[in-house]
Amino acid sequence: MDKAQIGVTGLAVMGRNLARNFARHGHTVALHNRTTAKTKALVEEFGDEGAFVATETAAEFVAALERPRRLMIMVKAGPATDAVIAEFAPLLEPGDMIIDGGNAHFADTRRREKALREQGIHFVGTGVSGGEEGALNGPSIMPGGSAESYESLGPLLEDIAAKVDGVPCATHVGPDGAGHFVKMVHNGIEYADMQLIAESYDLLRGAAGLEPAEIAEVFRTWNTGRLESYLIEITAEVLAHTDAATGRPFVDVVLDQAEQKGTGRWTVQTALDLGVPVGGIAEAVFARSVSGHADLRKAAHGLPGPARRATEGSGFADQVERALYASKIIAYAQGFHEIAAGSAEYGWDVDLGAMATIWRGGCIIRARFLNRITDAYRADPAMATLLTDDHFAQALGDAQDAWREVVATAARLGVPTPGFSSALAYYDSLRADRLPAALTQGQRDFFGAHTYRRTDRDGAFHTLWAGDRTEADA
Amino acid sequence: MDKAQIGVTGLAVMGRNLARNFARHGHTVALHNRTTAKTKALVEEFGDEGAFVATETAAEFVAALERPRRLMIMVKAGPATDAVIAEFAPLLEPGDMIIDGGNAHFADTRRREKALREQGIHFVGTGVSGGEEGALNGPSIMPGGSAESYESLGPLLEDIAAKVDGVPCATHVGPDGAGHFVKMVHNGIEYADMQLIAESYDLLRGAAGLEPAEIAEVFRTWNTGRLESYLIEITAEVLAHTDAATGRPFVDVVLDQAEQKGTGRWTVQTALDLGVPVGGIAEAVFARSVSGHADLRKAAHGLPGPARRATEGSGFADQVERALYASKIIAYAQGFHEIAAGSAEYGWDVDLGAMATIWRGGCIIRARFLNRITDAYRADPAMATLLTDDHFAQALGDAQDAWREVVATAARLGVPTPGFSSALAYYDSLRADRLPAALTQGQRDFFGAHTYRRTDRDGAFHTLWAGDRTEADA
Repeated sequence: MDKAQIGVTGLAVMGRNLARNFARHGHTVALHNRTTAKTKALVEEFGDEGAFVATETAAEFVAALERPRRLMIMVKAGPATDAVIAEFAPLLEPGDMIIDGGNAHFADTRRREKALREQGIHFVGTGVSGGEEGALNGPSIMPGGSAESYESLGPLLEDIAAKVDGVPCATHVGPDGAGHFVKMVHNGIEYADMQLIAESYDLLRGAAGLEPAEIAEVFRTWNTGRLESYLIEITAEVLAHTDAATGRPFVDVVLDQAEQKGTGRWTVQTALDLGVPVGGIAEAVFARSVSGHADLRKAAHGLPGPARRATEGSGFADQVERALYASKIIAYAQGFHEIAAGSAEYGWDVDLGAMATIWRGGCIIRARFLNRITDAYRADPAMATLLTDDHFAQALGDAQDAWREVVATAARLGVPTPGFSSALAYYDSLRADRLPAALTQGQRDFFGAHTYRRTDRDGAFHTLWAGDRTEADA
Repeated sequence: MDKAQIGVTGLAVMGRNLARNFARHGHTVALHNRTTAKTKALVEEFGDEGAFVATETAAEFVAALERPRRLMIMVKAGPATDAVIAEFAPLLEPGDMIIDGGNAHFADTRRREKALREQGIHFVGTGVSGGEEGALNGPSIMPGGSAESYESLGPLLEDIAAKVDGVPCATHVGPDGAGHFVKMVHNGIEYADMQLIAESYDLLRGAAGLEPAEIAEVFRTWNTGRLESYLIEITAEVLAHTDAATGRPFVDVVLDQAEQKGTGRWTVQTALDLGVPVGGIAEAVFARSVSGHADLRKAAHGLPGPARRATEGSGFADQVERALYASKIIAYAQGFHEIAAGSAEYGWDVDLGAMATIWRGGCIIRARFLNRITDAYRADPAMATLLTDDHFAQALGDAQDAWREVVATAARLGVPTPGFSSALAYYDSLRADRLPAALTQGQRDFFGAHTYRRTDRDGAFHTLWAGDRTEADA
């Protein structure tokens, strides 16, 4: 029997669909699972889709793979991943590859890559976005690890990845943890994007008085313009859906407590470590958290606020579209700033424009807009922030009056818009001539002798606040 | 020679001042430092303030202490703390105490406490707030560790702590890392408080056209009312100060790039781990971070925005006062929520009202306002959020119109107010009948089959979005 080009261990839905995707693209796929029932079920149900080699033991699985071996693990992130690595690594030989397609924390991936590198094994921490459906029909794939491993593995990943304009949504991100880092930030951006859409919906309902079906139409229209994206498309679908049991709009029967897994939180925690401001992403994570605190919400229900009234007319949806587009630019600028900072910190040399390219298809945040980001980084790879790219600067300038009106209206009517507000504050902070941080530095020098710098000469200074208030070199 | 009641090793400014404070209160203090020059200098300069026992070696230092020994380490947080513990722990006996008065991360304190407990040694991770001046004249002290250690150590700490209405600003916070946790959140609240003050200043300048000296007068007036606090007081001092070299307002010659150490960041990272929304604190940390990104600011300078004009009249300062008070309540509510969550997570049983009590003096956030928080928790120790306490709910209700106007005005004029805006969004989110998180849940079910709950019956549900859109039990 022919050896398999790739093996997949861990045949829950993601692993199963990736295995099928490889097989459908003409690759022989070795299969392995902790319990053999899932392996058998896959072959029985989908065996005609391609060439599968079902194996039962770890040794059989490894023996079924061509050299250098490409062994993909699709198990729960955390200790389960370490356990599977510990099981297979002793069976592998130098030059073999272990590909982790789970949502691992990039720090874990760095640790694992280092340990396996010492054994001559390539560890390829790989972001895979697109959920079950993407795994089967074409995900966005973000592999880290060595360039050598990508030479051998890349063609297979590019085969199964989504394609946009014929370009595969897979590329080598960078060494060790780079792939999982970029996937993490992708998810953080996804949180922000979803929160901004949620605020747009809330405003159209609370300030313009539209019903969900009407708002679905607004999103459908937006999806024909610059906001065209998967998330806008499915927002229209969700809002247009009627609950069969009650006849009410579906969105009104869903409990309004959003859940989350770890990657949004990690994005913010990592940004804090790197000193990158990601207020838009943080507010999105916190907004989900607030929604889930049923006890606090119950207690705070009835605190005074303005009644929501349909004060806004037909032009309001257009204002919200501008606020949404501007805020979205901010969220992406923050996310790309974080990737640039991570790349610099860990020496990954990530091609930022290429990240936007591989997110154009397969993943949740796929959008027409991403071409603009690719173009921006192609034009100036060292750009300090996306905001200053000609297209984005122009869009922000065009949007800003409407954006300000939307934030003001939300504040007046009591519609919470943490995402829009935070994005606007970030924009106004970055473009400001002067920030009140000068006062903060003065306070810190007053109470803690932390010193300050001056605008007119170099050095660190301290004012003798408790004394005669003269200034000393620090 | 009498044995010392307490020993201090690490005689940089904080250690030196705490040692002097103990001595001034009649306690015999053993002194130790890695280099003996600092020990000698302290005795030479301040020996007449009380009874000091200068020692040179670790063995001498330990021998100078009465049993059970109270050994306070005042060294840089991190590896230096571990090194000092490793040096002294072998010389101690069961029942002795090591007190870490540095700004350690509470997780490190938990680890150290556990390791030393196994050797029968009490490890007392202790928050100390108030800077150099507080250390000498009365800090706010937040000791964790065992109740047994507090019985022996507490009276000394209460002696040297600040006093307000005769009550010492020191109390036993709770086991292991509780003290350093509470100190961390204290600092996070301090970040938020300072950011809100900075925004108030920026608005009075940018929207009302006041000069720094005039704004100093506004803060002086505020300091006679409900905002009375150390930070408001020193804000007036800093804003009233003229730079001697240039004759310009001091705040205008200070470089507007705020610096930070780790505790604000830790507060946000820990809140994310605990699932506690602390947007007000996060925005404050990010605002400092934004101000320090000179490269981004330089690039973004000149992006379009409204000209700041003095559109607001004499009533504006009063509106800002209301916005500031309301936003401050939010920041404290978020911080106390985090302490409550940490206490529940780690089984600390922290008395929340007592934390407000010991922050009334000595520390940077000392304020009249804290009595209200103590009263609120005395009235209802199980309160889910400070916002619903009668006083605070009333204050928020009274403030909200002005708060909304201030946020709207800031948005219109391009004055960044991430703190005010985030606080208002938090308030409006908690009191909302419905949040757009329902849409978020619908989207998550659409693209990832993450399921949702319903408002009208229990269970988890999934809509077959790719199929006939009927609903299935999940």
